[in-house]
Amino acid sequence: MNAVDIIVKKRDGGELTAEEITFFVHGFVHGDIPDYQVAAWAMTIYFQGMTDAETTTLTQAMAASGDQFGLHDSLPPGTIIVDKHSSGGVGDKTTLAVGAMVAACGLPVGKMSGRGLSFTGGTIDKLESIPGWSPNLSEAHFRRQLRDIGLVIAGQTSNLAPADKTLYALRDVTGTVPSLPLIASSIMSKKLAAGADAIVLDVKCGHGAFMETLDGARALARLMVAIGARAGRQVVALITQMEQPLGRAVGNVLEVQEAIATLRGEGPPDFQLLVMALAVEMLLLGKQAHSHHEAEAQLSRAVQSGEALAKFTQFVVAQGGDPHKVEHPDALPRAPITLAAPAPHDGYVESLLAREVGLACVDLGGGRHKKDDPIDHRVGVMVNAKVGDAVKQGDPLCVVHAADEAAGQAAVARILAAYGLRTDPTPPLPMVYERVAA
Amino acid sequence: MNAVDIIVKKRDGGELTAEEITFFVHGFVHGDIPDYQVAAWAMTIYFQGMTDAETTTLTQAMAASGDQFGLHDSLPPGTIIVDKHSSGGVGDKTTLAVGAMVAACGLPVGKMSGRGLSFTGGTIDKLESIPGWSPNLSEAHFRRQLRDIGLVIAGQTSNLAPADKTLYALRDVTGTVPSLPLIASSIMSKKLAAGADAIVLDVKCGHGAFMETLDGARALARLMVAIGARAGRQVVALITQMEQPLGRAVGNVLEVQEAIATLRGEGPPDFQLLVMALAVEMLLLGKQAHSHHEAEAQLSRAVQSGEALAKFTQFVVAQGGDPHKVEHPDALPRAPITLAAPAPHDGYVESLLAREVGLACVDLGGGRHKKDDPIDHRVGVMVNAKVGDAVKQGDPLCVVHAADEAAGQAAVARILAAYGLRTDPTPPLPMVYERVAA
Repeated sequence: MNAVDIIVKKRDGGELTAEEITFFVHGFVHGDIPDYQVAAWAMTIYFQGMTDAETTTLTQAMAASGDQFGLHDSLPPGTIIVDKHSSGGVGDKTTLAVGAMVAACGLPVGKMSGRGLSFTGGTIDKLESIPGWSPNLSEAHFRRQLRDIGLVIAGQTSNLAPADKTLYALRDVTGTVPSLPLIASSIMSKKLAAGADAIVLDVKCGHGAFMETLDGARALARLMVAIGARAGRQVVALITQMEQPLGRAVGNVLEVQEAIATLRGEGPPDFQLLVMALAVEMLLLGKQAHSHHEAEAQLSRAVQSGEALAKFTQFVVAQGGDPHKVEHPDALPRAPITLAAPAPHDGYVESLLAREVGLACVDLGGGRHKKDDPIDHRVGVMVNAKVGDAVKQGDPLCVVHAADEAAGQAAVARILAAYGLRTDPTPPLPMVYERVAA
Repeated sequence: MNAVDIIVKKRDGGELTAEEITFFVHGFVHGDIPDYQVAAWAMTIYFQGMTDAETTTLTQAMAASGDQFGLHDSLPPGTIIVDKHSSGGVGDKTTLAVGAMVAACGLPVGKMSGRGLSFTGGTIDKLESIPGWSPNLSEAHFRRQLRDIGLVIAGQTSNLAPADKTLYALRDVTGTVPSLPLIASSIMSKKLAAGADAIVLDVKCGHGAFMETLDGARALARLMVAIGARAGRQVVALITQMEQPLGRAVGNVLEVQEAIATLRGEGPPDFQLLVMALAVEMLLLGKQAHSHHEAEAQLSRAVQSGEALAKFTQFVVAQGGDPHKVEHPDALPRAPITLAAPAPHDGYVESLLAREVGLACVDLGGGRHKKDDPIDHRVGVMVNAKVGDAVKQGDPLCVVHAADEAAGQAAVARILAAYGLRTDPTPPLPMVYERVAA
């Protein structure tokens, strides 16, 4: 078996065997197959695709390329480990709220999350807005916290699916990112390696998502559910709207504040709806509830009783964060400048391009153009007017939180250009488009 | 401008601008664009192709990546420099005969040639069968010999189209060899850099050629003629048969002997025919003759008068070779073992797979599996029975020249398996299929 033959087979539309895929993944992780052959192979996959069987093998081979976590021995017998993954969007602070709510209902959540890049934010960056909070946990700490508190969110260990890291880095610079089997296997390999028995996927769809069309999102969701089924994991995917930012807050401190408000039952309606939908799926997969209705009731109770927020506070403290800032989120660091973006005329919001809002936040310093850019947690955007809202001339469509006046003005201009207003009423956008399950 | 954008543009079926192609070629020659991006780019070209304009720009950019030779100042004013290229085959000693015949007619031939790889032989290897002969000439020597003798064949300088070298080496290990624009630009870039005003292409077609089908050979010929026209060079291509070995001799010494016999007018008919066809095209492009008929007459005269062989001898001597071996080719080194491959039954030769004969010769030690393998010039195969020939059971279909008995037996077995005999008469194969010109 050699790399060129495998490249040629895929180039010519053949279906690779499990041995061939495993050989290739093993080869590039161990440096036996050079970057240029991996790049050529990825491009053949871009053009020729992969069958579900091939994609599953690729996913499993990448999952097996590094550490694989078994968390069952840290948890009561019979516990189903349910993970949650979002394909990335703008204003997506879902994990913060969902994790605490689900954990408050008794289903342990032990997650590894990532940082933001380009227009999308990352859960770890958001949580680092809380002074003292750290994602760097020893495995012993992770297990202890999972057992004692039932909620832990850590950075990805450097040896989680290293094949995916290698392949992703190469795809990024070789024009092979937008390939469905490569996207799906990248996501799922990390979930399999992290030891989930069941996974709830939030597949974002729209202007602020990697998948811009419903067809694309549906294909990705379907493929990831199929990989799960073939790999013996239960997977449910919700295809959710990411045309405009999720909720109102975009930016790290602002999003933490919004997540805390949501745990108090005071979040924006679209965000509350999504959080509930995802949390319900997790409780069902984890067999903490027998019906959608029962799951919803548990989750509402957890919020109303304060248990969800208490769980979040416990979690923050366990990872070194300041509980005072959770109880008084207004005390989190604030940007020195706030500037409103006024509506240019009366009308209804027809569109608000999520990606532009995300990029405006990056420009403000709240995200990264490049992997190692530092970020300013304070800056961001509070969206007041969302699609379907009526606005009067001069109303603040949003408020920009900036480190200085010039950056703030630039963000205001960019966001104003991202708004589409029309004179006729326009309906609000749906939050969840579809549910995909095996 | 950046490499990823160019990869993505071609991936998505776009036509690259001259600036983009030149940027990419310049980038990878100077190490600014890494191998993995070149590999991905080559694979996009494999899938999406290139327009004639793109392919010409690629060819010119690769030609301009290293030394470019201008030979006019070494030659009488008005001389048209005509080069000849074969796409490679089995038993292809054409350059040896054509070069001497054309030069004897007064058209100077200054060529750079290559070595053999896999089933195809190389002109430099063949000439090195002549003790003392060397392809390593200084530029001054090359120019002096071209002026004084009118025939010089040298190895490629290391800085001839280095972009092509880089790209070819990468294509070889990334499954991107069989791409028409990449093949055509690879060949033509070296011809342009070598300073030819006009080029005669021998595009081989069949089992022992890179192009196995007439459609493929025609497309390659057409593309190279188009590149020539766009680059301001006159190009004529002959599409020639390479189903069975060319002539009778396969192997370095054996082929030199056959070339010398051909210069005496005693070569195998198919080979004489091809040599004449190519030489005629060269004289016409070089304006040494006004008509096909006139060119043929000149060439026949050069052979009959002994001038062609005398030119070859002069050429060999000028590059350090032993003239005695040209006058007495039987004195060239001989393999110790000769073994006949007997016809298994009466019949007619229906096929003789050229690639198998070429590989048998490699197995005997007469060619290379890998780039730096040493070769044994003595070994090879003399084909007695060619397609269309009637044979009797026990007749020697061919004679293997081997370094030892075991290697010889293996080659006999391989070649016997490469022969197809049938009981009904079968026609001989044509030598030249088509002529392609602008």
